[in-house]
Parts: sequence; structure tokens; C-alpha cells
Amino acid sequence: MLRERTLRLQFGNRIEAICVVGTQVAIDVYGAAPAEALTFSLKHTDGVEVEVISNDQLEPAPTNGGKQWPLDAKTNLKIQMTRPSTEANDNKVTVNYYGENGGPPIDQAGIFLTGVGISLDVDADRDGVVEKNNPKKATWTWGPDGQGAILLVNCDKENPFTAMEDCQDDKVYCKEDLEDMSRMILRTQGPDRLPPGYEMVLYIPISDSDKVGVFYLQNPFFGQRYIHVLGRRKLFHVVKYTGGSAELEFFVEGLRFPDESFSGLVTISVSLLEKLAEGIPHTPIFTDSVVFRVAPWIMTPNTLAPVSVFVCSVKDNYLFLKEIKSLVSKANCQLKVCSKYMNRSDRWMQDEIEFGYIHAPHKGFPVVLDSPRDGGLQDFAIREILGPDFGYVTREPLFEVVTSLDSFGNLEVSPPVTANGKEYPLGRILIGSSFPTSAGRRMTKVVRDFLSAQLVQSPVELYSDWLTVGHVDEFVTFVPIPGKKQFRMLMASPSSCYKLFREKQKEGHGEAVMFKGYTGTDTKRVTINKVLSNEVMVQENQYVQRCIDWNRDILKKELGLGEKDIIDLPALFKIDKHGKAMAYFPNMVNMIVLQRDLGVPKPFGPVIEGECCLEQHVCSLLEPLGLDCTFIDDISSYHKHLGEVHCGTNVQRKPFSFKWWKAVP
Amino acid sequence: MLRERTLRLQFGNRIEAICVVGTQVAIDVYGAAPAEALTFSLKHTDGVEVEVISNDQLEPAPTNGGKQWPLDAKTNLKIQMTRPSTEANDNKVTVNYYGENGGPPIDQAGIFLTGVGISLDVDADRDGVVEKNNPKKATWTWGPDGQGAILLVNCDKENPFTAMEDCQDDKVYCKEDLEDMSRMILRTQGPDRLPPGYEMVLYIPISDSDKVGVFYLQNPFFGQRYIHVLGRRKLFHVVKYTGGSAELEFFVEGLRFPDESFSGLVTISVSLLEKLAEGIPHTPIFTDSVVFRVAPWIMTPNTLAPVSVFVCSVKDNYLFLKEIKSLVSKANCQLKVCSKYMNRSDRWMQDEIEFGYIHAPHKGFPVVLDSPRDGGLQDFAIREILGPDFGYVTREPLFEVVTSLDSFGNLEVSPPVTANGKEYPLGRILIGSSFPTSAGRRMTKVVRDFLSAQLVQSPVELYSDWLTVGHVDEFVTFVPIPGKKQFRMLMASPSSCYKLFREKQKEGHGEAVMFKGYTGTDTKRVTINKVLSNEVMVQENQYVQRCIDWNRDILKKELGLGEKDIIDLPALFKIDKHGKAMAYFPNMVNMIVLQRDLGVPKPFGPVIEGECCLEQHVCSLLEPLGLDCTFIDDISSYHKHLGEVHCGTNVQRKPFSFKWWKAVP
Repeated sequence: MLRERTLRLQFGNRIEAICVVGTQVAIDVYGAAPAEALTFSLKHTDGVEVEVISNDQLEPAPTNGGKQWPLDAKTNLKIQMTRPSTEANDNKVTVNYYGENGGPPIDQAGIFLTGVGISLDVDADRDGVVEKNNPKKATWTWGPDGQGAILLVNCDKENPFTAMEDCQDDKVYCKEDLEDMSRMILRTQGPDRLPPGYEMVLYIPISDSDKVGVFYLQNPFFGQRYIHVLGRRKLFHVVKYTGGSAELEFFVEGLRFPDESFSGLVTISVSLLEKLAEGIPHTPIFTDSVVFRVAPWIMTPNTLAPVSVFVCSVKDNYLFLKEIKSLVSKANCQLKVCSKYMNRSDRWMQDEIEFGYIHAPHKGFPVVLDSPRDGGLQDFAIREILGPDFGYVTREPLFEVVTSLDSFGNLEVSPPVTANGKEYPLGRILIGSSFPTSAGRRMTKVVRDFLSAQLVQSPVELYSDWLTVGHVDEFVTFVPIPGKKQFRMLMASPSSCYKLFREKQKEGHGEAVMFKGYTGTDTKRVTINKVLSNEVMVQENQYVQRCIDWNRDILKKELGLGEKDIIDLPALFKIDKHGKAMAYFPNMVNMIVLQRDLGVPKPFGPVIEGECCLEQHVCSLLEPLGLDCTFIDDISSYHKHLGEVHCGTNVQRKPFSFKWWKAVP
Repeated sequence: MLRERTLRLQFGNRIEAICVVGTQVAIDVYGAAPAEALTFSLKHTDGVEVEVISNDQLEPAPTNGGKQWPLDAKTNLKIQMTRPSTEANDNKVTVNYYGENGGPPIDQAGIFLTGVGISLDVDADRDGVVEKNNPKKATWTWGPDGQGAILLVNCDKENPFTAMEDCQDDKVYCKEDLEDMSRMILRTQGPDRLPPGYEMVLYIPISDSDKVGVFYLQNPFFGQRYIHVLGRRKLFHVVKYTGGSAELEFFVEGLRFPDESFSGLVTISVSLLEKLAEGIPHTPIFTDSVVFRVAPWIMTPNTLAPVSVFVCSVKDNYLFLKEIKSLVSKANCQLKVCSKYMNRSDRWMQDEIEFGYIHAPHKGFPVVLDSPRDGGLQDFAIREILGPDFGYVTREPLFEVVTSLDSFGNLEVSPPVTANGKEYPLGRILIGSSFPTSAGRRMTKVVRDFLSAQLVQSPVELYSDWLTVGHVDEFVTFVPIPGKKQFRMLMASPSSCYKLFREKQKEGHGEAVMFKGYTGTDTKRVTINKVLSNEVMVQENQYVQRCIDWNRDILKKELGLGEKDIIDLPALFKIDKHGKAMAYFPNMVNMIVLQRDLGVPKPFGPVIEGECCLEQHVCSLLEPLGLDCTFIDDISSYHKHLGEVHCGTNVQRKPFSFKWWKAVP
């Protein structure tokens, strides 16, 4: 902000000027002096503080001082108004010029002053209240002691009769719409009216016009009407000066989420403009600015409490639905079934959408991120999820080809972690990708850029292209430890499966049969001995274990985990004709996590003494932590289609209690 | 970089693996253990260091220890190679498994190890030499203690027969072309050949492929040929492993300057890939990366020594040329006259181009920035300036309309300053613009973004739209104080002109006549009295003074200047029918600065006792500083066309001795 301005006295007459309280005006006495003047003296009213600066020495000037100062080109006055004026030009400073022979003044110059208080205010200290003239309102900092105001993208839809999100139009249909916006108050103090030729303007830089919208309550008393004053195609707005002590209230909404080309910061300024003559542009003599950061979109890890579970109803998943239903009621959260009509026989609820939320000190609500995958569920999010206090956002590539890696089974988030000395109190986003060296599949850039630009859950790129489907949820997930702040990372593990099978073989169960009651067409009789003696399978799974270990090493490093934080779940894979891997039996890591209750794909492993040794083993690993495994048969309805329980479900969870702005990205 | 990887022993047999010296491998002993195993012991060769980790306790293992460790799921070995191998598999680690009853081992598993040294090296310490494996080579930091390698945009043209800059093609025509590039060395140590199934790959992220190019010297001995291995359409390159101690030399060139969408940082990596089976993608087991920053384009302020002065020869500026010529020879630098044929009667040499330079520890050269203005001089820069060790860069808007504010008379740079506690050792760029509140003219975004993205001369936007032409060089310039590190900022000042005229009037010279010998059509007789009594002119110049003061206040704040650093040069303006200002008499601030020698527009001010009182006044202000004013008549050839000496000339200057990477933007 420009906090000091220069004024020039005019030779032989008086000028008028406004001085904003809290700012300084530097006055040039030399330029206006008559040719023969050598010294000058000063008179001024109480409402003004005046200092004389000659060769960088400051000296306060008494209100009506007899004192004379020598006059030279570098002599300046610094003046300040101590309070707003009650009427225009109620203060003044008079300069008397003297020639050689002391005597009476040979000339006068002067300035009439009007004091005005102007402050554009926001909730810069993030307590939900708009304080007065916060000194740090024009900057934005992160962390526990950070400050700067916060804005929500108004991406929900309060009005059932509008088609799109509220931020798509320049209207306010209801009070609820205003509650999503941040309040901004313009406080002014001064005489009933400003001297002629002054006006106040509220404005935004053109680069922010597609990122922020500002509304103003027109007449508070009769039939309130909110008018759109800044935003798309509205770069500035002339504010009516009302006189006395006034507070004009504005409402601010975000229009866009942070992105590659948008840091998330927007600036709104108010300027006092001075007009000098007709047909000449106004010059700004005072500017006050505020900065908002648009709240990031935040993902919710498995360790957060579930609110609702989403699943599709398709022709062949009736039994699956039933099992999910009982699990969900056990975990007492809400089940939301997407109808056949809506999902158009697209069963992959996990892949079309990702649930998250946005949060500001004054308000917060869930926001669904819509994948560019666009299967049969394409319209589900916008038609059935977007609504009052439920936001919507999407990213679609312009040119890039969308692959299976763009499905959100390939987009997960870890619980809060600390890695390499850095804290991630909201966890880190995990996405699957290819090796930089191989021209493989990769999540589309627009989505990756969007995720990184949110800043608070710094994404980690894993290697998932080795899988036929290629999703991170095929080899890693996270479970809470009930009653503790801790969690465990679960990973699919061929080597632990072989280890287990060898033990069972040793115990004399080599002929135990897998896939019993397996509803599939695969009728071969598969035993532990067969699996262990299948050399091709051994080798393929060594390769798969390498790929998983490669990710395991990255995850240990990027999430700061040790071996004790990781649990290996037995799994086997087979390699398809393109050299990509798919689960051999239902892949247990691909589970749904509802706090203590886990819905695990039923593995149909070798049955020993009437029990599946894989289920038994997994329970022995997880139940001691206080978790409860329910094994769900997803063979015919999901596994056969290369997905499992997690791929077929989606969970909306409670937001973090931790406030994102207290993090330091 | 991934510095630790996991390896799994295989049940009942031995595996082979490469271990890169300086990295750690975590080995899982549990997974490969036979079912009944309870403990294990270790043997290993001297070239390997082995530690046993059980429940997070580390314990070194003796080379052939009798010691047995209990076996459990969390038991791990950490191994490191102490030196590169002389032949493949010359080291090994053997694990013996034992059952309950002590006795002999019931099974074995083991690993053959080959040690390899791999290091991708650059000049990360910025001393012009590529050191070995600098630990900080993968990051880039600013400042005196900063580190990270530097890259030049290869934007000069060594070869007279190519049409465009060297970075536009994927060829190396001559040794000189290589000298513009940064050296990068891949150092490897190990056996004559790697075990089967391994390869090394050099690669860049796709986002960098349009920003960097890498060449490799094919056969050093017979007829050297440089082949393009990375860059446009080349994302990776398989490197031949040569065995023993080898150094492969690469040459790296920048293709693009930092810009809004490009931070300036590029990454190059080498990975060692391991192949596990046919038809299955390689997995990277070791990666080493280096980061380069593309050197910014840097402008040169008036305080730097001139090298050459450029000026156009047009039909009517013969006398002007003569005066410039003598000034230039006095300042003993080179005069370069642009022919009528080349300039197509475009005389505004200042407006079409801006001279700057780029600099890296190994090399530096001047670079001309070509304006989107594109007048008659449009092809001058690319046709006559671009050449060996003289680079070229331009920015053209796609959609925006180009205005007069896009001419580079509106692009200047201050000398080094310190403002608000921040140092700008390379000065700050100054560009003229409009008030945010008025939809006026503004320099095109692509150029503004380019200038900001260079980071080291953080631009200040001034208000110049109040002028008819609208260039910052119409109201501000900088002069050195010969023999000192200081400088003065000169500003056009109507108020100082009125002050001077009033003094002269008082001294009885009110009838002194202006514009004597003025070669213009304007024949009215103008005296000091007439000027002082012209109320319209007084008011217009009060407005102009406001506009200048507004910039003056910003400059004081953003450059950290005080009144003592500023010299006001008398000037008068008149307002055109659009309310914009133009100089009333030749605008002296629009001067050419060649160290102590100033070429000042001859003002044709009131002549008193045979002397122009304006020239006299300006000399009295500047000569005490050790500066030498030459007043040049530019009335008919430039002033009448709304420009002056500075607009008609351009100066290429010596680069800063200060190295930009030692700054902290």
C-alpha cells in the first residue's frame, strides 16, 4: 500500500486536500515560495500534526509558532490528521514566507484539510468475525500464527431450480447462498459529504475477475436486494460515500479452486480518487487492500469417521448389496444406493467420484470431485450429489486421452503423517502412475495439477501401471487403530502368501483346496501344493512383489513409516497377455474401511478344518488391533470384472477437526 | 531420490542383485524362511556391510558369524556395498535357517551382489568445473551460499548459415555452440559388464522436454559427432555401460527462458533399470538426479558502462546523427547506425528493442529482447543483432492488442537499490501502466509475465498512461555519480520549472523569449511572463505534477530513495484533446546516459544574457556531481514526433560484475 503521498502548495493561493487518517502527506514548501523568500513560518489547527524536515532532520511545528525556518529545495513538511473531520475543510495549515529584511510575511500559501477514515476490513485473524483494520489484512501467511482471510468456492447449489453451482451465476437467490460467502466491510468516517471531486472505488485486478465475486446489499430496509458489484466483467465499482461513521457490508465468493495457473490468492482494493480537472482521469490518493485465499479441496482418509456409504445397484449384485447394507448399519452410518436408472449399469462407484470438503472460519461443506473417467455414472455427482451445502468440482482434459488411471480408485489419501521432518497434518494424496522411463499410462495432467495446487495434501506419485487396471487401491490401504491416533498401512503381498502356504503345506495341508463355493466358471481344483509348485506363478509373483516393494519403499520414505507400521496381506497375482497384473483370488487389501469395521473381499482361500486359512490369517493380523473383519463375497459381481469391494463402494467422511490454514505446506 | 530399496530372499535358492555404492538395501529374511525355521545365521564377504534389524534394533553382523538371531516377520537385513565390484557377483550374503533343535541348518537362502558406482554430475557449486557427486546437486538454492547448476538458453546463433537461434534445432554445428552449453558427466564404476537384465537410462520429465536439450559426444576419437539424446520428442536415452571407471560427457542447453508457466528449474535423471522377466517392464532400482536453473534475462541500468550506442539513420536526422556521433566518441564507445533500408524510416530505436544479458559460471553473453511493437524496425534485432554470442528473445501476445505502452521506452531498470529492508543488487525493472481503477492502456501481459518470471529484477509498475505516448522514460531516468557507487534519480518537474521562471521574472527577465532558433513551425513569441500568466497551462501542469508525484512517491517507496537522491529537472507539459500530456518544450529527462557524459534534449528555454536559463539550471544541478551535459537539438527530428534523444537511441551496456545467483529474489 502507498502510505505516503506528496502534495505541492501553490504559489500565492490556498489548496484543498483530503488526508486519510493514518497516512502521511509530504508537503513541498519550496516550490510555492515567491522568488525572494528566504525563510518561512507555520500556523496550523489542532486536528493536524505538522513536522518540518530540512536536510533529513525532523522537527515538530507548534500550532501557531512564531518560529521561522530557512527555505531550501529539500525542505518538506510532513503532516498527519489526528482524527476524521466533522465537516469538510475544517483544518488548515498556513505557510508565511519572509524575505531578507525579516519584517512582515511577503507572501502566503496554505492548505485546507479534510480528515477521512477509510478501512476495508475482513476476517484476517480467522475467528469468524470481521475485525477493524487488521494491520496484516493485505498479506496471507500459513501456520498456527498465520493470518489472512479465507474464501470458499461457492460450488454448492442452494436453489433447486438452478442448473449449476451458485458461483456460476451473478445472482443471490437466498440467505443460505450468502452464508457460503465471506463478509467484507468498508468502514468510513468523515464529514457528511466529501469535498467536490473525490470518489471511492472498490476494484479487483483483471487477473482475479474470473476467481472472485462480490455482492452488495442494496437497501437493507425494504426488500433487500443483493447486487453483483465485482467479478466477471466487473473490474471496479464506485462506492457511495455516506458520511459520518458508516459500515458498508459486502459478501465475497470464490469462483475457482487453486490450480496450476492460480495460487489461490485474490486481492480486493478500495481507492480514494481525486479529480483535478474535467476530462482528466482521477488519480488515486489512498488505497487499502485485503487478500483472501481460496480454501483448498481436501480429501478424507480412512481414519476419519464415515457419514454415508455409496454403492450402485446393478442387475447382478443383489447379494453384495445385502452384505454391504448390514455392514453399513453395523458401522451405523447411512447407505446411499445409486439406482440402475442413474448408474446405467456402471458399478464402479469408487472410480467416478472422490469425496472431500472445503472449510473456512465462517463455514464449511463437503465437495465431490468428479472424475474425467465419465462412465455410466457420469451424471451422478452433478444430478444427485450437488445440492444445498454439498459442492461440486471437476477437471476434464482438453486433449489428453483419459485412461483407467484417471479413475479415482487410483486416487487415495494417507492419514496424517510426518516424513523427512515435515508434517502433513492432513495426510498426503496418493496417485498411481508409470515409471518416468516408460511411456506408460498416467493420470491426466489437469487432475494432477489440480491436486498439487491444493497444497495441503502434497501428492505422492506411485507406480501402478504394472496392474491391468492400474489403481493404487489394488495394493495399498490404511486402517485406523480404534481408540488411538495411530494407523496401519496394509499392502498386498505375494511373498507373505507364499510364506503362509508353505507353513500350511508343512503342517500337512498341502492338499487343502482353494475357491470352494467360488461362484465362478473356473472349475479347476486348486490346492496349496499346486500353487507352490507352479513355477510360472512363482516367478510372476516375484515380479509383482518387486513392483509392490518399489511402492512400499517410496511410501515408507514419503510417509515416514517403518516396518512396524506396515501389515502385509496375503495376495497372489497373475500376469495378463500385455504383461500387466491382476488379482488371482479376491484382493483383500481392496477393502472398505468404516472405522473399526472392515468389509474385506472374501478370498476363497484354502479351507483347512472348515476354515479359510487366508481369512484366519488376516483376522489374526487385524483383530488384535481392535478391528473387525467382515468377509464379503464379491466374486461374480466385482472380482470377475477386475474390481473388488473398495472399487464398488465410496465413502463420504467427516472433515478433519484440524484447520487446514494452521498447516505449513 | 529413492536411497533405500527392499529385496526379498527367495525360498530355497540364491538370487543375484546389483547394489549401487552409497545406497542401502533392506533384505527380508522372513519371507524366504522355511515353515519350521525359528532362527537364522549370516555369512557375507568383506565387500558388504550387513546389519540385522529386529524390532527396530540395529546390530552389525560379523562376516562369518556363528551367531544366531530369532526369526520373525519384522526381521530385516540392511546391507551396503563398500566399493564397486571388479567382476559381476563377486560378493555374497548367505542366510542359514535353523529349526527347534539347534542342530545343522535346515535350509539356506542367499544373494550374490555386484557393486556399482553411479553418479550424474554437474557444476552444482558454480565454480565452472563439474565436481564429483555433489550432495546438493538435486536441489537449487539462491544466495551467496546457494548451490545448484545453471543453464543458458542457447539463444545466440553461431552459424551464419542457420536462420534461427541455436536452441531451435537439435544440431551442433561447431565447438562454439557447445561452449554455450553446460557440461554434465555421468560417472560409473564397476565390472566390465553388468549382469544380464540391467540397463541405465537418462531421462527428463515430459514437462521439461520443451525446456532443455542434451547432446552426447558419440565417438571422441574419429570425427567427433554430437548427437541429440534428450529434449523435444526425446524423453529418455539408454546409456551404454562401458565398465571400469568411466566418464560419459554430455552437453546441456536451455530452450526457454523462465516464464509465467515455467519456474526456470529443469531436472535430468539417470536410472538403473532391472529386468525380471521377458515382456515385463523394467523396474528402476536406483535413480540419481540433477537440477538446473535456466539463467534469467537481465537488464542493464544507466549506471553500467556503455559498449555500443544504436541509432537510426532517417531522411531528416543528419544533424542529430552528427551530434550523437561526437557524444559517443567522447564517451569512447561504439556507434552503430541502423540504415534507412533496415529501419524503413522507423526512428524509434529505443522502442523496438531492449538490451540485456544472460550469465552462467561457464559463459555469458548479451541478449536482445524484441518488443511486440513491431514497427519498421521489426526485423532489425533478428537480422542484424542476433549472431555468435549475441542472443535473441521475444514475446508476442496472441490476442491482446499492442499499444504504445508496449514500446520499450516504457521499459527501464533502476540501479542496484535496497528498499523496505530488501536488497535488489541488480536493480528493479520499471514499466509504465494505468491505474487499476481505470480501463487504460497497459503493457501486454506476455511481456509483463516474462519480466516478472526472471525474478532477479522484480518489476515495479508505474503510472504512465497519463502521457500521450505513455512511456516511463518521459518522466524518470537515472544517472551515475562518477567515481562513486551512488546514483541520482532524475524526474521531470513542472513545479521546479515554474519556480525557476518565477525567480527569473523577479530578476527582471520576464520578457526573455523561449524557442529561439527553434526550427519548428510554431512562430508565436513565448516569454516567461506569458508562460506564468497562462492559467490553463498552470492548471494542466499542476495535474501533470500530481501524476509525476504519484510515481515519485511509489519510486521513493519501492526503490528506497529519499529526497536527497532525487533531482527535479524543469519541464512543462500540455494536455492533448484526449486529456493526455505531451512535452511543451524538449523534455530534458529523456536523455542518453553514457557514464559521465549525458546527451540532453536541447530545451530551447528563455534566453537570458545569451544563455538558456534551463540549460544553465540543469548544468548547475548535474555538473557538481561530475557529470557533463551535452545539449542536443532533437526538435525537428524527434521532439516534433513526440520523442526525444532517449527515444531515438539505445545503449548496449557491460553486464553487472555481481553474479545473479548470489542474489535472493
